[in-house]
Amino acid sequence: MAESVERLQQRVQELERELAQERSRRVLGGGDGVGGRARIEKMSPEVVDSNPYSRLMALKRMGIVNDYEKIRTFAVAIVGVGGVGSVTAEMLTRCGIGKNGGLEEGKPVDLVLSCVDNFEARMTINTACNELGQIWMESGVSENAVSGHIQLIIPGESACFACAPPLVVAANIDEKTLKREGVCAASLPTTMGVVAGILVQNVLKFLLNFGTVSFYLGYNAMQDFFPTMSMKPNPQCDDRNCRKQQEEYKKKAAALPKQEVVQEEEKIIHEDNEWARRFCT
Amino acid sequence: MAESVERLQQRVQELERELAQERSRRVLGGGDGVGGRARIEKMSPEVVDSNPYSRLMALKRMGIVNDYEKIRTFAVAIVGVGGVGSVTAEMLTRCGIGKNGGLEEGKPVDLVLSCVDNFEARMTINTACNELGQIWMESGVSENAVSGHIQLIIPGESACFACAPPLVVAANIDEKTLKREGVCAASLPTTMGVVAGILVQNVLKFLLNFGTVSFYLGYNAMQDFFPTMSMKPNPQCDDRNCRKQQEEYKKKAAALPKQEVVQEEEKIIHEDNEWARRFCT
Repeated sequence: MAESVERLQQRVQELERELAQERSRRVLGGGDGVGGRARIEKMSPEVVDSNPYSRLMALKRMGIVNDYEKIRTFAVAIVGVGGVGSVTAEMLTRCGIGKNGGLEEGKPVDLVLSCVDNFEARMTINTACNELGQIWMESGVSENAVSGHIQLIIPGESACFACAPPLVVAANIDEKTLKREGVCAASLPTTMGVVAGILVQNVLKFLLNFGTVSFYLGYNAMQDFFPTMSMKPNPQCDDRNCRKQQEEYKKKAAALPKQEVVQEEEKIIHEDNEWARRFCT
Repeated sequence: MAESVERLQQRVQELERELAQERSRRVLGGGDGVGGRARIEKMSPEVVDSNPYSRLMALKRMGIVNDYEKIRTFAVAIVGVGGVGSVTAEMLTRCGIGKNGGLEEGKPVDLVLSCVDNFEARMTINTACNELGQIWMESGVSENAVSGHIQLIIPGESACFACAPPLVVAANIDEKTLKREGVCAASLPTTMGVVAGILVQNVLKFLLNFGTVSFYLGYNAMQDFFPTMSMKPNPQCDDRNCRKQQEEYKKKAAALPKQEVVQEEEKIIHEDNEWARRFCT
């Protein structure tokens, strides 16, 4: 009898342990164990079910990216993990990013992503990045959830947040719909997905050096309008670290040989028109 | 002692039941019970944690959508649940769609979404939709994963797949990168997210009658270029049901009063330029 009690007590302990494990698995969202599968050390291009990277490595075989595995060596910090930031973190992970945060103690991240929803937080990131000379990308969605944008800020090279008014809304959107204090903003999984998608796509292009990285890309969901542009920094910017970075950039740019950018842009415009002429009615 | 054994045996049974429940929860991915929370009968605009719809209902308060709750009365069928289709299904669910499939036995769906990855499957959907007069939206991603498109096909009104060559790739992409038979295609979570996002956004605009629905919207990830256009059906289309639908559309269009579409488009172009002039450097 005493033995039976002991055995039952052991079984209770065993079950309690298993239950606690199951619960932590569910919370962590793991599939085959706590925290999911183990880290894969090498990104293999092999097309097998156990390799989550074959579809990414195909980008290399197809001549889009020279060295896709390099993604593992980069660290990106995401500030704000709400509507856009949470989707961004998931996409970056699935794209094979090294780490969302510093890869090594004391080493800076390669890029900071701002996925915050208010002006003050953006300005704080701006001030810190101007001081550190840290390149960052900004994202935003309007209060009515039908427009958004991404912006690349290279301190000294492109307009920072103190240089120009923040472009929180894209074209053709009434100014009344700008984010106001204390208002419960609308949210659409679609707009959040598109903004996170164009943000992470530009992160990949920037880090892995393929395609053209947009300095500003807007998204107007009402008209499917995606304006792009680039903005020069303001020499009279209020942020003294921005002005300092501008001086340093000028010195660096003067030392480099001049590139023929205009020639390339004309070629692209011509190709677009050619394509449109073939297909449009 | 007998009582103690009985109590322990009860505890073991209880724990075994809880463990089995936890395991089924994890498999089904539910949050607060097997299969998640119960269906919410009414879409309330109330801002409380237990209401997943307040951020969507804010679109109504902000004057974007007149009657957001109507989303619950629509059914959408998704053909193909891979890279684009799986994200599409999740987004539509989070947007509050009534059902991904027929709402009622024998009643047609409001829209068919093609999220397939090959020409034959697209053509099969095209043939069926022309026969039924079923409006559908097509989506596609190129083999190299850096371009995609969505297209709205209204039988008789816009070009069907038999009318024109399929526009699987957007502008500036080499024809050699078109999807080939037996080739393991590249895949990028970013491109899939953007294509699913613009697809579901256009589904919402179409069903809930707000903004402008694009007949064709391309995505060139390399240059952040998003071409839009519309294509008229081909009067010599190979599909006899397409030609039949065209005749019926002509009759219906002739009976309607003519709309001043050109006027509206000119206004939009002017506003875009105005906006670009204000912000670009």
